[in-house]
Amino acid sequence: MSANPNQVIANLRELAALTSDANGAQRIAFTATWQQARDWFAAKLRGLPVTRHRDATGNIWVTLPGTSPKSLVLGSHLDSVPNGGWLDGALGTVAALEVLTAIAKEYSATGGRPPFTVRVVDWADEEGARFGRSLFGSSAFAGTHSIAADRARTDRDGITMEAALAACNIDIDKIGDAAIERENIAAYLELHIEQGPVLERLGLPLAAVLGTKGVERHAVTFHGQEAHSGSTPMMDRRDALAAAARLALEIRTIATKHPDAVCTMGSVKTFPGIVTAVVGRCECTLDQRDLSPAVLATMYREAQDASFRFASEERCTVDWSRIWSIEPIPFHPDLIALCRESIAETVPAGTEVPSLPSGPLHDAAEVCRAGIPTVMMFVQSLRGISHNKIEDTSEDHLRLAVTAFDRLAAKTLAWMATQ
Amino acid sequence: MSANPNQVIANLRELAALTSDANGAQRIAFTATWQQARDWFAAKLRGLPVTRHRDATGNIWVTLPGTSPKSLVLGSHLDSVPNGGWLDGALGTVAALEVLTAIAKEYSATGGRPPFTVRVVDWADEEGARFGRSLFGSSAFAGTHSIAADRARTDRDGITMEAALAACNIDIDKIGDAAIERENIAAYLELHIEQGPVLERLGLPLAAVLGTKGVERHAVTFHGQEAHSGSTPMMDRRDALAAAARLALEIRTIATKHPDAVCTMGSVKTFPGIVTAVVGRCECTLDQRDLSPAVLATMYREAQDASFRFASEERCTVDWSRIWSIEPIPFHPDLIALCRESIAETVPAGTEVPSLPSGPLHDAAEVCRAGIPTVMMFVQSLRGISHNKIEDTSEDHLRLAVTAFDRLAAKTLAWMATQ
Repeated sequence: MSANPNQVIANLRELAALTSDANGAQRIAFTATWQQARDWFAAKLRGLPVTRHRDATGNIWVTLPGTSPKSLVLGSHLDSVPNGGWLDGALGTVAALEVLTAIAKEYSATGGRPPFTVRVVDWADEEGARFGRSLFGSSAFAGTHSIAADRARTDRDGITMEAALAACNIDIDKIGDAAIERENIAAYLELHIEQGPVLERLGLPLAAVLGTKGVERHAVTFHGQEAHSGSTPMMDRRDALAAAARLALEIRTIATKHPDAVCTMGSVKTFPGIVTAVVGRCECTLDQRDLSPAVLATMYREAQDASFRFASEERCTVDWSRIWSIEPIPFHPDLIALCRESIAETVPAGTEVPSLPSGPLHDAAEVCRAGIPTVMMFVQSLRGISHNKIEDTSEDHLRLAVTAFDRLAAKTLAWMATQ
Repeated sequence: MSANPNQVIANLRELAALTSDANGAQRIAFTATWQQARDWFAAKLRGLPVTRHRDATGNIWVTLPGTSPKSLVLGSHLDSVPNGGWLDGALGTVAALEVLTAIAKEYSATGGRPPFTVRVVDWADEEGARFGRSLFGSSAFAGTHSIAADRARTDRDGITMEAALAACNIDIDKIGDAAIERENIAAYLELHIEQGPVLERLGLPLAAVLGTKGVERHAVTFHGQEAHSGSTPMMDRRDALAAAARLALEIRTIATKHPDAVCTMGSVKTFPGIVTAVVGRCECTLDQRDLSPAVLATMYREAQDASFRFASEERCTVDWSRIWSIEPIPFHPDLIALCRESIAETVPAGTEVPSLPSGPLHDAAEVCRAGIPTVMMFVQSLRGISHNKIEDTSEDHLRLAVTAFDRLAAKTLAWMATQ
C-alpha cells in the first residue's frame, strides 16, 4: 500500500477549515485552537493499531509498534503563527500520518507487524509565536533547552510561559524528561514547504535538504555625532547613518561570494531620528546564515572588519553585541542520498533534483543535534511566501511531495536494516 | 560712546543665572521663565530715554526716538529651547540693547537726538520649542504666518497654542496686526552665534552672513518586499533598505558638488524592522539646503533621480512627499558689505573676513522676506554645538562681536542717510 496524496490534501483542507479564520491559520501553541487541531489529529488515528501519548514537554507521539523497537520517526508541527498558512508544519504532520497509515494498513492486511517501529511526532510550539521561543518541544527532546530562560518568558498579555504550560498540564521543571523519547530512534524524516522562492524560480517541485544553516545574529551600533542639519557642513559631519548605510550595502558583497549564504540588515534605528539632525547613533541588526561553519565565520569576520573600516572612515565608532547564534546543522549524508533518490523516482524523468540548505530552522535541526540521522524534504512554496494566509503550494506539487516522502520512508526503513 | 562688550557678557551671565537650571536655559516662549527674562530685560531699560511696548503677536519693541522716524532695528530673541544655551538669541538681544544704550548715551550727553530712530526687538517664540512653530513672532510681523495652522497647534500636554497665547494676553486672531511695526523700518541687523563648526574650523571669530539657505524637506519611502532572512536568497530580494542606503550615501555626493550645500538623511525607519526579515518598506527623511535657488533645485532633482534609479535597480518603488520647504533668503548686499567692513575694522589686521550662508533659519530671514534690508553677523560657536547647555563662545570672541556689531550699527545709520 502507498500513501494517498489526495487524502493528505483533503485532511489539510479539513484542518484549515477547522482552525483558520478570515486572516489565516490560528493554531498558536498552547491555545484552544491548537488543542482543537491536536484533537482532530487524534481522531484521525481511529482504527489504526497505534498508541498515542504526550511527552513531558507536550510533544505528541503516535507509535505503530514494529518487530523491532528500533524506530523511524516522521513528523513536523501542527502549531502555526497567528494569521499563518495552511501548510507550514501541518503538511509534514499530516503527510507523516498518511505514510504511517499506509504502512499500518500494509502490515495489518497480513496480520503482521512492520520490521521496525514507526512513529509520528507532532512537536509542541515549533513557531514560538506566543513566547518568542521557537523549537520549544524539539529542543527539550534534544536537551538543548533552558528551563531558566523559558521561565522568564511572558506573552504580550503578561502571562508567563510557565503558567501557559501548567494550564496544558505541562510542568516546566520536567520538560527535559522528553529526552526519554530519543530511545531507539534510528532516523527522523520531515517534509516541509520551502518557505522561500528558490524552487519556484528553478521551476522544480522538490528538493533534498542538506541541513539548516548556522546563524550569526548581532546588534551593530554606530556612534557618530548628532549635529544640526542646517549648520553642519558635509565635511564636518560624523554621520552614524552613513557608516551603517555602507555596511548595509557591503553585507551583500560579503554574502554573494558564497552560493547559498545570506546576510540581512533587518532593522535600522536612527537617533535622534529627526529630519533636522545628522544621525548621532544608528542601531542596526545583522543576521548572517550559511550551511558551512567556515563560510559563516568568514562572513562574520568580514562584516566586522568592514564595520570597523566604515566607522573609522566616517570618524564614528562601532560596537557589536551578539543577539543569538547557532552552528550549521548538516543532515545525514545517507539520508540525503535516499531523499534525492526518492525525489528522482517520483518526478518526471530528467527533472533535476536539487539539494538545498534550509535558511529557516526546523524541528529536524534539533533532532539532528541529538545525534539522530535526519533529513528533510522541501516542496515548492508559491511566491516564496510563508507565515501568511496566502502561503500556498500547487496540489500537483503536494501530491508529488507525499509520494516522494512515502518512498523516502520506505527507503529509510530499508537503510535502517543495514545499520 | 561705544557699546561696552563686558557689559554684554555680564548681562548674559546675569540672564543665564536667572533663567537656567542645572540642565541649561529654560526660557521657553509663553512660560513663566520666559516672562521673567523679558521682565529682566525691561528693567535694564531704566534711565534710558526709550519707550517699550508689546505688539499684537507678543514681540517686544524698545524705541529710542530719533530726529527722523526712519528706523534702524537691532534684535534677536530671548526665548530658548528647553535645556538650551546661554547665547542663542540672548546674545543678539542683549548686544542690541547695549548698542542702543551707547547711542542713547551719546546723544543724551548733548541733549540731542540721533538722526534716525533706533529700535530693539525681542521676537516672540523664535524657537517654536513648545508648539513646533519656529519664527512665530517674526513671521506674524512679516505677514507669512497662518492663523489657521497656528490654531491647530498643541503642546505635549494638549494645551492649545491659542490658549497659551491668550494666557499671555495675545489674541490669535490679531497676531497679523504686528505688521504695523514694519512702518519706517529701513534696516534690520542681528548678531547671532553660528551654531555650526565652520568658524571654529577656520580659526576665525566673526563672519558676515549672506542669507539663510532655502530648504527642501521630504519624506522618501522605498517599497520592496518583506521576506524571510533565512529562506530568501540574496538574488531574490527586493530590499527597501538597500535602496535607502544607496540614497543615504548618494546625497553626500550630490551635496559636495557645491561649496555650502548640505543634504541630510536624519531619520530611517524599517518595516517590519525585525532581525529575521528583509526590509519591505523603508521610510526616510531628506533635508536639503543651499543659499542658491538653482543649486537647491538641482540637488532636489538629483536626489529624486537617484532614488528612482536605486528603486528600479533594487526592484523596489519609491514615493516622495514634501514635508516643508522655504526659498533661500539672501541678505542685502550693501549691508553684507558693511558687515564685512565692520568685522575687518575690529579683528586683528590681516585676519580673513569670511561670508557664510546660514543653515538654520533666523528671525532675520522673516524680516528680510518683508522687504526690509537685513544682514546678520555670526560669531564663532565652540564645538559647533547649540541648543544644549554646553553651547559656548569664548569671551574674547564675544567682545569682538559686540564691538563689530556696534560698528555695523553706526555704518548702517550712515548708510540709511544715503538711501
